Amino acid sequence: MRPLSLPPLSAHGRSERVRAAVEAKGADALVVTDLTNIRWCTGFTGSSGVFVISKDRHVLITDSRYRDQAPTQLDSSGCEAEVSINSDWVAVVAAILNKGKGLNDVNGADRTTRVALEADRIVWADQRRLSEALDAELMETVGLIAELRSVKDEAELMRIQTAAGIVDAVLEECQNRFVLGVSERGMAQMLEDGMRAAGADGPAYDTIVASGPNAALPHARAGSRRLANGDLVVVDVGALVEGYRSDMTRTFVVGSPDDRAVEIHDIVTRAQAEGVATVRAGVETGEIDRACREFIEREGYGDAFVHGTGHGVGLDIHEFPAVRRGNTAILSPGQVITVEPGIYLSGYGGVRVEDTVVVTEDGCRPLTKFPKEFVCLSSQPTI
Amino acid sequence: MRPLSLPPLSAHGRSERVRAAVEAKGADALVVTDLTNIRWCTGFTGSSGVFVISKDRHVLITDSRYRDQAPTQLDSSGCEAEVSINSDWVAVVAAILNKGKGLNDVNGADRTTRVALEADRIVWADQRRLSEALDAELMETVGLIAELRSVKDEAELMRIQTAAGIVDAVLEECQNRFVLGVSERGMAQMLEDGMRAAGADGPAYDTIVASGPNAALPHARAGSRRLANGDLVVVDVGALVEGYRSDMTRTFVVGSPDDRAVEIHDIVTRAQAEGVATVRAGVETGEIDRACREFIEREGYGDAFVHGTGHGVGLDIHEFPAVRRGNTAILSPGQVITVEPGIYLSGYGGVRVEDTVVVTEDGCRPLTKFPKEFVCLSSQPTI
Repeated sequence: MRPLSLPPLSAHGRSERVRAAVEAKGADALVVTDLTNIRWCTGFTGSSGVFVISKDRHVLITDSRYRDQAPTQLDSSGCEAEVSINSDWVAVVAAILNKGKGLNDVNGADRTTRVALEADRIVWADQRRLSEALDAELMETVGLIAELRSVKDEAELMRIQTAAGIVDAVLEECQNRFVLGVSERGMAQMLEDGMRAAGADGPAYDTIVASGPNAALPHARAGSRRLANGDLVVVDVGALVEGYRSDMTRTFVVGSPDDRAVEIHDIVTRAQAEGVATVRAGVETGEIDRACREFIEREGYGDAFVHGTGHGVGLDIHEFPAVRRGNTAILSPGQVITVEPGIYLSGYGGVRVEDTVVVTEDGCRPLTKFPKEFVCLSSQPTI
Repeated sequence: MRPLSLPPLSAHGRSERVRAAVEAKGADALVVTDLTNIRWCTGFTGSSGVFVISKDRHVLITDSRYRDQAPTQLDSSGCEAEVSINSDWVAVVAAILNKGKGLNDVNGADRTTRVALEADRIVWADQRRLSEALDAELMETVGLIAELRSVKDEAELMRIQTAAGIVDAVLEECQNRFVLGVSERGMAQMLEDGMRAAGADGPAYDTIVASGPNAALPHARAGSRRLANGDLVVVDVGALVEGYRSDMTRTFVVGSPDDRAVEIHDIVTRAQAEGVATVRAGVETGEIDRACREFIEREGYGDAFVHGTGHGVGLDIHEFPAVRRGNTAILSPGQVITVEPGIYLSGYGGVRVEDTVVVTEDGCRPLTKFPKEFVCLSSQPTI
């Protein structure tokens, strides 16, 4: 069961930190349109809203459905922003930001207001509406809040750890019921039911169970296929706890593995350990990808590792930083990332092994702890 | 259980219909970036992809994770498009579309290629990348595919009907277990477990159970609050079947309702019936909103109906057409919409009643059929 002692989440001070980062980029204000970023800044969980961060005012604009919910959530998260209930958010943004037009620069000369937008989050149509309504120069920013969000505080880490712990326990409990003849969807259902029973709010994403030839598809869903003798079975499963997510993959085999299954499971497990051993504050994420990829290449399966090595995890299941070939983002303590190399062989099957880890000064601490031995599921169709 | 006889979904001919609609808007090509629109056009369900529809070529571009899955899904959905596996989708789009540059118009004169984008779906950063890579004029389009998608074919309707039927049966089965002391989250869990057991792929959206003062929040989630005597309890629940969704809301009371609860439940139920009676092909969706809204206004609760009357439902839970004040979209046979007026009284509670209906030539056919009597849940804390 979920521990009762989780400390409250707090958004206190976050929008002010964003404001400082916006100013450092040379902008006077930021219009936040990504709902997860808004949640992180304010605690607001509604499905519609825009958050304006300017020098003087931080304002969450949302519609009348959230008349009561928005102030309550901002208040309980310790967020200092105002709430504006208005369905015409562009007009509200303009009313707030056009006031500051003709800002004086440090030398007292008039200059144009610069308003930053989340270029990889705001849709083109909204950018055009703001461009018409604002007496300002629009600036592209990418990943400004994502980078702040990537470093988790203690309350956030405890939720991710709790989610990971729930999945460890549920997978342990379920694996004896993963037997010949059970369907992929049935397995996903057992896991998701188990997570909820253990106190998770649900799965962190649609649980992947990919068996036999489906295991060659890195992002297969759980389908109607039933486990058959000799199948490789990729199980990619995470839990959701108060908005935060965990992410783990293990690969099983039904009955006895053939030589190739043993070989690729061994390679992927060792490559994953190489990747995890590379994680520490100060390292570029591309180095982690390189450690996994070069290991798999040396073993002759380079072409079969068809995706990046990992990604940040938190309020979103995929967030900053990406852990991919050539990525130069530098790891910081408190970031939470996955390390998940795989080998995929069309028509045959595949293996992926994945952990979620938190970056520390001198390494990392795994949050997912399910053992990585190559477990053989029962080839008897009984539970 | 889910009927076994659902006919297969088919995307056959859809991208060609989109191409014709694009041409009618005066564009030479459309770059589709919305994943649900891509799914509708091609059958592809991956989490990353871009679909290019030009005069000569229809190409789905996705990355190597979907190397096997993409061609398989397009093939089994009857979609005629090609697949291109390439992580640099902008370059592929440019290679396809820049070939056609300097198109001749009907008079043989050179003219600029016009490439339409989904302005309310493509992010600004991607629009800018295309703007640099394409030798073309970019055109804003909004809702072009959404409008085609809104009219459901028989195979789609059967999935929505199946989802709705599952929820009717599960709510019927669960309501005796909705008793004093049960938590909102516990109720949501019972419903979601029941849906899955009945063959749904999951809930269509996070099930809403809002009790007591929470019922005054139109988009509350299910939380830890437990049912108390006299509570109004809004239950907003839908199921997901092979990508398609249903949507229904009923409001219960714990024990005996007070006079105000009886009054507002009665008003909302009658307003909802007025709205449903207004639905038929040829009517503007704003008329349905007006029917509900004017009814509630006449009864003196106009200010307490704080949201639109409904929305289209299909692959997305909220899709075209919106059913809101002043909306001029004209209903067509085969569209599926919700009708869901409500009254929300801060600090007291609220009532919402919602059905999903399919538009017909001379009216509509409800897909959700759970009775609308004001059901009193047991005020005894036993099951």
